[in-house]
Amino acid sequence: MTKQFFLYLVVAPSLLLAQQKDVTQYVNPLIGTQRMGHTFPGATVPFGMVQLSPDTDTIPYEMNGKYNPDVYKYCAGYQYDDKTIVGFSHTHFSGTGHSDLGDFLIMPTTGPLQLNPGTADNPKSGFRSAFSHANEKATAGYYRVKLDDDNIVAELTATTRAGFHQYTFPKTDDAHIILDCMHGIYNYDDKNVWTFIRVENDTLVTGYRQTSGWARTRTVYFAMTFSKPFKEYGCRDYSKKEVYRGFWRKFDQSRNFPDLAGKQLRLYFNFSTAEGEKIKIKFALSPVSTEGALANLQAELPHWDFEKVRADAQASWNRELNKVAVDASEAEKQNFYTALYHAFQGPTVYMDIDRRYKGLDQNIHTAANFTNYTTFSLWDTYRALHPLFNILQPARNGDMVSSMLAHYDQSVLKLLPIWSHYANDNWCMSGYHSVSVIADAIVKGNTSFDAAKALDACVSTARHRSYEGIGSYIDMGYIPDEKLGTSASTTLEYAYDDWSIAQAAEKLGRQDIYAEFLKRSENYKNIFDASVGFMRARKADGSFKQQFDALSTNGQGFIEGNTWNYSFFVPQNPDALIRLMGGKKKFVAKLDSLFTMNLPDKYFAETEDITRDGIIGCYVHGNEPAHHVAYLYNFTDQPWKTQYWVRTIVSNQYKPAPDGLGGNDDCGQMSAWYIFSALGFYPVAPGANQYQLGSPAIDKAVIQLENGKTFSITANNQGGKNIYVQKAVLNGKPLDKPVLNYSDIMNGGSLVFYMTDKPKK
Amino acid sequence: MTKQFFLYLVVAPSLLLAQQKDVTQYVNPLIGTQRMGHTFPGATVPFGMVQLSPDTDTIPYEMNGKYNPDVYKYCAGYQYDDKTIVGFSHTHFSGTGHSDLGDFLIMPTTGPLQLNPGTADNPKSGFRSAFSHANEKATAGYYRVKLDDDNIVAELTATTRAGFHQYTFPKTDDAHIILDCMHGIYNYDDKNVWTFIRVENDTLVTGYRQTSGWARTRTVYFAMTFSKPFKEYGCRDYSKKEVYRGFWRKFDQSRNFPDLAGKQLRLYFNFSTAEGEKIKIKFALSPVSTEGALANLQAELPHWDFEKVRADAQASWNRELNKVAVDASEAEKQNFYTALYHAFQGPTVYMDIDRRYKGLDQNIHTAANFTNYTTFSLWDTYRALHPLFNILQPARNGDMVSSMLAHYDQSVLKLLPIWSHYANDNWCMSGYHSVSVIADAIVKGNTSFDAAKALDACVSTARHRSYEGIGSYIDMGYIPDEKLGTSASTTLEYAYDDWSIAQAAEKLGRQDIYAEFLKRSENYKNIFDASVGFMRARKADGSFKQQFDALSTNGQGFIEGNTWNYSFFVPQNPDALIRLMGGKKKFVAKLDSLFTMNLPDKYFAETEDITRDGIIGCYVHGNEPAHHVAYLYNFTDQPWKTQYWVRTIVSNQYKPAPDGLGGNDDCGQMSAWYIFSALGFYPVAPGANQYQLGSPAIDKAVIQLENGKTFSITANNQGGKNIYVQKAVLNGKPLDKPVLNYSDIMNGGSLVFYMTDKPKK
Repeated sequence: MTKQFFLYLVVAPSLLLAQQKDVTQYVNPLIGTQRMGHTFPGATVPFGMVQLSPDTDTIPYEMNGKYNPDVYKYCAGYQYDDKTIVGFSHTHFSGTGHSDLGDFLIMPTTGPLQLNPGTADNPKSGFRSAFSHANEKATAGYYRVKLDDDNIVAELTATTRAGFHQYTFPKTDDAHIILDCMHGIYNYDDKNVWTFIRVENDTLVTGYRQTSGWARTRTVYFAMTFSKPFKEYGCRDYSKKEVYRGFWRKFDQSRNFPDLAGKQLRLYFNFSTAEGEKIKIKFALSPVSTEGALANLQAELPHWDFEKVRADAQASWNRELNKVAVDASEAEKQNFYTALYHAFQGPTVYMDIDRRYKGLDQNIHTAANFTNYTTFSLWDTYRALHPLFNILQPARNGDMVSSMLAHYDQSVLKLLPIWSHYANDNWCMSGYHSVSVIADAIVKGNTSFDAAKALDACVSTARHRSYEGIGSYIDMGYIPDEKLGTSASTTLEYAYDDWSIAQAAEKLGRQDIYAEFLKRSENYKNIFDASVGFMRARKADGSFKQQFDALSTNGQGFIEGNTWNYSFFVPQNPDALIRLMGGKKKFVAKLDSLFTMNLPDKYFAETEDITRDGIIGCYVHGNEPAHHVAYLYNFTDQPWKTQYWVRTIVSNQYKPAPDGLGGNDDCGQMSAWYIFSALGFYPVAPGANQYQLGSPAIDKAVIQLENGKTFSITANNQGGKNIYVQKAVLNGKPLDKPVLNYSDIMNGGSLVFYMTDKPKK
Repeated sequence: MTKQFFLYLVVAPSLLLAQQKDVTQYVNPLIGTQRMGHTFPGATVPFGMVQLSPDTDTIPYEMNGKYNPDVYKYCAGYQYDDKTIVGFSHTHFSGTGHSDLGDFLIMPTTGPLQLNPGTADNPKSGFRSAFSHANEKATAGYYRVKLDDDNIVAELTATTRAGFHQYTFPKTDDAHIILDCMHGIYNYDDKNVWTFIRVENDTLVTGYRQTSGWARTRTVYFAMTFSKPFKEYGCRDYSKKEVYRGFWRKFDQSRNFPDLAGKQLRLYFNFSTAEGEKIKIKFALSPVSTEGALANLQAELPHWDFEKVRADAQASWNRELNKVAVDASEAEKQNFYTALYHAFQGPTVYMDIDRRYKGLDQNIHTAANFTNYTTFSLWDTYRALHPLFNILQPARNGDMVSSMLAHYDQSVLKLLPIWSHYANDNWCMSGYHSVSVIADAIVKGNTSFDAAKALDACVSTARHRSYEGIGSYIDMGYIPDEKLGTSASTTLEYAYDDWSIAQAAEKLGRQDIYAEFLKRSENYKNIFDASVGFMRARKADGSFKQQFDALSTNGQGFIEGNTWNYSFFVPQNPDALIRLMGGKKKFVAKLDSLFTMNLPDKYFAETEDITRDGIIGCYVHGNEPAHHVAYLYNFTDQPWKTQYWVRTIVSNQYKPAPDGLGGNDDCGQMSAWYIFSALGFYPVAPGANQYQLGSPAIDKAVIQLENGKTFSITANNQGGKNIYVQKAVLNGKPLDKPVLNYSDIMNGGSLVFYMTDKPKK
């Protein structure tokens, strides 16, 4: 028996006790709801299909036929500074910079029936209500708010596939529940393709809503039950042009008519209520059918005990969040557990209780051997979120890869997902980063899926000549500027992705693939302009694009980042990049400039998705392309600068307050960056087995691994100015390089950082 | 051994031989394609889901926001007088007076690609082509036409769920097959709700089209294969306003892009062809999924042998048409077999090869124990088509009732179908005539379905107070004029329907139901105005509506008929009606007037769905409400007038020519009237076991029953002026009344008419 194993036996029982701890007390779902975080404060369980959350406005995507930039604020439906709530809808993205969803808005009201939402400056003009944060409570799995205009307390909780509403009414004969099927996030005139509703009886409503938005062909089915029969109900169709209705005109479809369909439907249900009477609503979703939604409802919510569902939701969060037991300052614990909470919002479960789901081909498939997930924001999440899952959620991560492979099988283009949700690819952003997620899982041996087939899917995707310049990239070694507006950043991303494919191929003994893609992974060199010292868009004739502004993100061949940020994007081979840039000294000076220069305001104005605080020097943490860059000092002789800048980013960019996030959380990527960095290490190149050490921001963390082992991280003397690592000791042995291996973690053990205020120069 | 049975043994072998006869030679699908017949000339098998037929124009339902009356000509997509064909689509109604369908138009062309159909007066302006009837051949299960503009011979045949196209091209490098998913019958701007297409490989295309028209929420899925790989393909989206496409804009979706969706899509596929080269297309439909369509395709068309499919289609028609072996004049044989052909066009099979179909609730159901049918034009077909099926197609009729009961089970309104197609009720016309079809089957013992449950569905439908005045009808004994524009005719129809429910209840021993509905069946009396001698709209206060014009069909409380036609609508009790109208003498005089008066032109102008020839006196055969009226003389002492007027109608209204039908064939009801009348009897009151004898127009007919027995009808000395029945002899015994029982037919036997030119006064 080794000492370590003995230690494990001693520690384990206390860890089990630790798992009983209610760490949801540190989760504040309001973090990121102000300004650019784009998180939502509502109720959801980990990776839940239903994310039931208040929406504070209904800004349309277009006004008078033109893009309305204000819509961007409402990517998650909620903005902290707003004074009114229009209702509670069942689907949201967490932290995205474009959006969709917001399905099936429910709003309780009293008094004369109002079927339009009204305006924020005059909430009484519609069914929306004023609210104040003083009367609002958001916790993991539970949300409550008082709706001031109507004197109604709204409470929300959820299961994986169902939302549970509880509305406490005053005494009135004029209580209404509005079901708004027009409402949506990033809404515009033609987005609602079709809505179909059946009022099955006086407590059950079923139907579906079909939209064409970010997801081009998307249908969500529902089943909704009331705890109390409604007195009467009605529907209005707000289509601008009345669709041909033929002999349907026979019926008055506006009142108590149960068979409804159209493009723009809002329904209401009327009740009489006693003082303090609670009307509850169970609202289940399905990607398959109303039958599926009803089965989900019956399976997950067979009773009307709101408090039990709330407690179950909280327990499910505690189960997931206790995978990391953290000692840290109160503020850092809030940051940490909220980051973990946001990291576990998605990808979301996308199948019914019977394992069926609608695929890319719009046919119904069964996920026989895995849980099917959707919402893959891969340009963001391949960087740190999926690598984090390979530690904290390996089973789910394997299922996520299986979901990507099902997507590939169903794709008529035979492409792995780029940015996919609800049986669609929205093709947002660049690269084919599915391959990184798959390669990282293969290299780490976390393969519940068929690894050989997965590698084939990666190769097939990466050889898809007609997709975003891949043909030119293969033929010429870079994408010419003439072919693609993001020719330079996409070339860099492909080169990294190709390296990850090579790693997976090597692991699987496919030398041919390894050689082909390792060679491709060097393509970054082809767009490095030594004359300016930066990556630079290159033309088909081999010359660099004349127009060049290293600070600008516009028209330079990059997306969501200027070449200052992108020129460091060779995560697969920092040593080679350093050589390319003239050696370590020049490289350090360049990194220093990145973090310390003063970016003129005019350049900030063209930076997307972030607040002014989201920028440190010219380093844009609020967007992802440079997320690994602070760790590149580790490849020079000045790792202490990694420690300095990582801690600077941690403290500048993550605060336990509604405005605590400096940029979009991007489906958990920003949070995952924080979690890794707070723990003291980061996956610079997913697909590699190594992490670079940084500077832990917690005092102690114990990671409970799915394999039953634990890995503990201790930061002795951490805090205040003590942000520098004096030494790091793994299982009792000092590390001579700032590198941690995946196996070091997964085998269990301990990593102890000794912190000081003196950089180790 | 009785003589009859001996006769059967002797006759049977010759009948079997007779079944080998090719009677499709007498079928002319072009009958009814000119003027008002609204039949289609294309290829289909009996009761087939696919009715693949040329469409000659694409008149929109609305022009400049207003109803365009010309659309009415194109209810079946084809008008004989047109000079151009726009293409061949896969779904059609036969003989309706409103429309829908026309899914998936295929058009082969040569030369420069044209993606719009062009106009009839300038066919070269688009992909449509001129054609001439000289180069056209339409037979049961096969259609051929030469497309003059492109020098292409188009041939069509079909299976139940798939169309088979064969196009013979000239030599060209510019051959195109157009797949127009915008095209539709009764089309208008917003009808195409969504279209989803995948070009799976260079010979397979799948997808679906979702429309909102006569069927409010309707989706048809397809799978389409080419016999030869296309060289390239493309797509154009003709949406007026471009739908938000987000990052889809990344791709050039117009050329060789396989993943397509939108509201208004037209695709093309390019080929090079040798002189006389045939490109074949197999095109299967499904109400469930593209997966279902592909399975249908593979099951029904596993090969590329066009001639075999054509022969199989012809054989399937011969199997059905030979159920009646007819001797008659050539013209009458054409009338007869074409009528039988039209009668067997629908209702249409509505389920996949695996028995799954989409139900009214938009969920997928399995028709475990029956074949599911759709397209129930019940206001028309309850009269004679379903009664005909109870003789010639009892198994199918039982399945049709099962289909209606499945509709009822799925209906959130808990109503049996009124006018249903493709998982929708379009609510066209009045009454709840499903109950008549169900009652007729129950009374005749043709119940493969659960008769008790079926009766409950009838009763529940008839007690549905909120449906079209039923509440008032129950409370007051009639529908007040204030409640419903068709208060008078609907009251009459309900009264008859109620009587049919009573008959079914009596048969099933439900005395309570019998008594309730027999009483309701007398409600016709409540709108008879003795002061004018006609049925008349009545107001809530009990007084008759003041406005009264017995010749007008407008604003009088009737639909598709004036009170002259409707006042005879008491098929359930002609004797009582005769008493109500003052006895037999007055009744005969009134009937005489109906058939002999001169209807002023101004009244014709307001008559729907028929040509001027569709009217005899004031009797409107082209619409249905008076279809039983010529047989009412049988209830007086002048049955010879039944014989006279029936033969007059037969010879005036049914001619073996494109303009041979005087009104809409109405899903086979007009044809079924003819078939019964030509055989010499008619079901005046479906739900009764009796038929009234008329005057047979054939010389001999032998009906091969599903129970293995045969019933023969002989009309001795029939023809020319010999239209009167001297005597009728059933199984050797002269009939003393002009009445035939259902059991007389189903037990097998012979009916011999002795015809003369002298009326038996």
